[in-house]
Amino acid sequence: MSDTITCLSQLREANPLVHCMTNTVVPQITANVLLAVGAAPAMIDHPSEAGLFAQIASGMLINVGNGLSEQHQGMRVAAASAKEAGTPWVLDPVAVGALPVRTELAMELLQFSPTAIRGNASEIAAVAGSGAGGRGVDATDSVEDVVQAARQLAERTSAVVAVSGPTDVIVSGQRTTRVVGGHELMPLVIGTGCSLGAVVAACLGAIRDTESAPHDAAVAAHALFAAAGKVAGEVADAPAAFDVAWRDLLYRLTPQDVAELVIIEEV
Amino acid sequence: MSDTITCLSQLREANPLVHCMTNTVVPQITANVLLAVGAAPAMIDHPSEAGLFAQIASGMLINVGNGLSEQHQGMRVAAASAKEAGTPWVLDPVAVGALPVRTELAMELLQFSPTAIRGNASEIAAVAGSGAGGRGVDATDSVEDVVQAARQLAERTSAVVAVSGPTDVIVSGQRTTRVVGGHELMPLVIGTGCSLGAVVAACLGAIRDTESAPHDAAVAAHALFAAAGKVAGEVADAPAAFDVAWRDLLYRLTPQDVAELVIIEEV
Amino acid sequence: MSDTITCLSQLREANPLVHCMTNTVVPQITANVLLAVGAAPAMIDHPSEAGLFAQIASGMLINVGNGLSEQHQGMRVAAASAKEAGTPWVLDPVAVGALPVRTELAMELLQFSPTAIRGNASEIAAVAGSGAGGRGVDATDSVEDVVQAARQLAERTSAVVAVSGPTDVIVSGQRTTRVVGGHELMPLVIGTGCSLGAVVAACLGAIRDTESAPHDAAVAAHALFAAAGKVAGEVADAPAAFDVAWRDLLYRLTPQDVAELVIIEEV
Repeated sequence: MSDTITCLSQLREANPLVHCMTNTVVPQITANVLLAVGAAPAMIDHPSEAGLFAQIASGMLINVGNGLSEQHQGMRVAAASAKEAGTPWVLDPVAVGALPVRTELAMELLQFSPTAIRGNASEIAAVAGSGAGGRGVDATDSVEDVVQAARQLAERTSAVVAVSGPTDVIVSGQRTTRVVGGHELMPLVIGTGCSLGAVVAACLGAIRDTESAPHDAAVAAHALFAAAGKVAGEVADAPAAFDVAWRDLLYRLTPQDVAELVIIEEV
Repeated sequence: MSDTITCLSQLREANPLVHCMTNTVVPQITANVLLAVGAAPAMIDHPSEAGLFAQIASGMLINVGNGLSEQHQGMRVAAASAKEAGTPWVLDPVAVGALPVRTELAMELLQFSPTAIRGNASEIAAVAGSGAGGRGVDATDSVEDVVQAARQLAERTSAVVAVSGPTDVIVSGQRTTRVVGGHELMPLVIGTGCSLGAVVAACLGAIRDTESAPHDAAVAAHALFAAAGKVAGEVADAPAAFDVAWRDLLYRLTPQDVAELVIIEEV
Repeated sequence: MSDTITCLSQLREANPLVHCMTNTVVPQITANVLLAVGAAPAMIDHPSEAGLFAQIASGMLINVGNGLSEQHQGMRVAAASAKEAGTPWVLDPVAVGALPVRTELAMELLQFSPTAIRGNASEIAAVAGSGAGGRGVDATDSVEDVVQAARQLAERTSAVVAVSGPTDVIVSGQRTTRVVGGHELMPLVIGTGCSLGAVVAACLGAIRDTESAPHDAAVAAHALFAAAGKVAGEVADAPAAFDVAWRDLLYRLTPQDVAELVIIEEV
């Protein structure tokens, strides 16, 4: 819990520059969420710019959701460049398993050692090789069903693996952390999952110096989202008002607020 | 009217998976609107994924507004695949008539038998071959002026044809239905038209079993939008607040509310 | 000041058609902002449509932020076409200086005589050839530091050059105008800068007939944004609520309101 407070404090102080290569649906909300949490977003897809920027950025997100071939090429260049430069980066395997081009792309990108992999249960199961993927972007598996697969994926790739759902599970090495919070309206706002990947990248970029940094960074990002979702659900009863309230809470909540609002269990 | 209540009830129950291939301006609002009305959005443009997904989806939208060549290629593949699989799909001919690439594309896609064609008066006139197109995305013809052209287009293509405006007109076979509702702020929120095409696709996907399903589905989608617009205009007096209120009403209004709020005239 | 009132009145009356070629993050907010201020947005990127539309439009924006190669090709075609047709157009050099592809593109587009060039301090310095560019999309120079460079750029290109910041500076020929207003939450909403370029294009399209039109148009657009930002900051204390309030004020404020709310200094 104190790690989450420390992480979120460092996030606000560091104003990390986050390079996002994301799908065509969520660039606007992803940028707004990064600004709200105290990070600086930069969306750069072009293959002749993405590699360079991956070396400048504090953290990077590659979200393999809906994109065109030239964006995919940019992702390959950027992932290789991030690995070479030591820039921490997040792989979000949107709808992997269900669709062939992005599945092949995500599997190929694993060779560039993502620092974290974040997805819903079906996506994580598919990347781990133990599931057939969900229904498009919807999970058809439960979070707890895939914890074992997530652990194997974490061991195989040395990445932190985060599975999002009503309760989020973050695994790495010997650690398993559950984050309880959020609200049922959250999945009815597009981009709440995709922008979580970006905020994991922001936290990775803000706290790069300790051994346990990647795990703590992923937990802190999930805790911030869950806390804002919990409070937003108390003030809004429909998705668009929830969206506004939730983004404003990402901006307003202090690290201490977050620690008080969500349950973080480490086993 | 009872058909609209039935359709909207089925929409909520079915949670249809809607494959959207849409222009670069509206993916976020389209996804949020689909989530609000009870559908599951999936934006998939890549030519090597779009054909596969068109066979999995409950319904599909092809909106030929602003897009790049690879997206256009994906649309061709997806339309052919939807026709083969029997997936109902909607063609939204944004700015067709005024611009050459999308006009040729829309005309080409007609061979793949769209279940519904939805646009403003100038767009429908252009697809029907009786108009020169509007001013970019703006209609320069009135809805009533193009009813005859819409009827001819419906006869020629066997599609339901829906013309949006202050009063919407939906025609197919021997039926003509007018939907009266909405609000003058609605056209000042980008995507209220484009996302209507997606909700027509959602309704088509939710009720596929009756003879009159496509016409009823199109009417139900237009009625839901008109009802939410009418109430939103009573609580908001500027476009951004209207946008939030309107999307929340799409989520909140019951099928019965919709039937009470709008006038649906069948002649 | 009376020029600003005149410009904004003409903007409302003219309903100018604005052709936007912009980055992948901001099309939705750019379109919503244009609708709010009384303009008609049309996003058209395809190289086989962009040149044609650049001749039809009242004004045009080229924003070289995140885009793919085919969009860049469309920008080249459109800029040439706008120059030939006499359509006034705005160049927004997002992140120029920091990134190679867009830097080369922006420099190439200068030959097509943009009517206005709008950016933050680092971007303007980079286009003027006197700076190394900022940190991605963030300015690392101050507005006042680059006024001299902006003046040289204006002289060399015959464009109006607008530098955005806490105080905006607009220069052209012998004129230097400062606009004071806005709010510190404004940079925390993505697209407030990018959509400003679009509104400059709208104002250019609304008032094309006087000698001083381009300078006055740029000042009017900046004054409208600064006024709406100032009032929004009084009613909202976090970015998402600010975003809604600000866009509604763009719609609601009269030209007289704007003149009373901001300080416009001409030296």
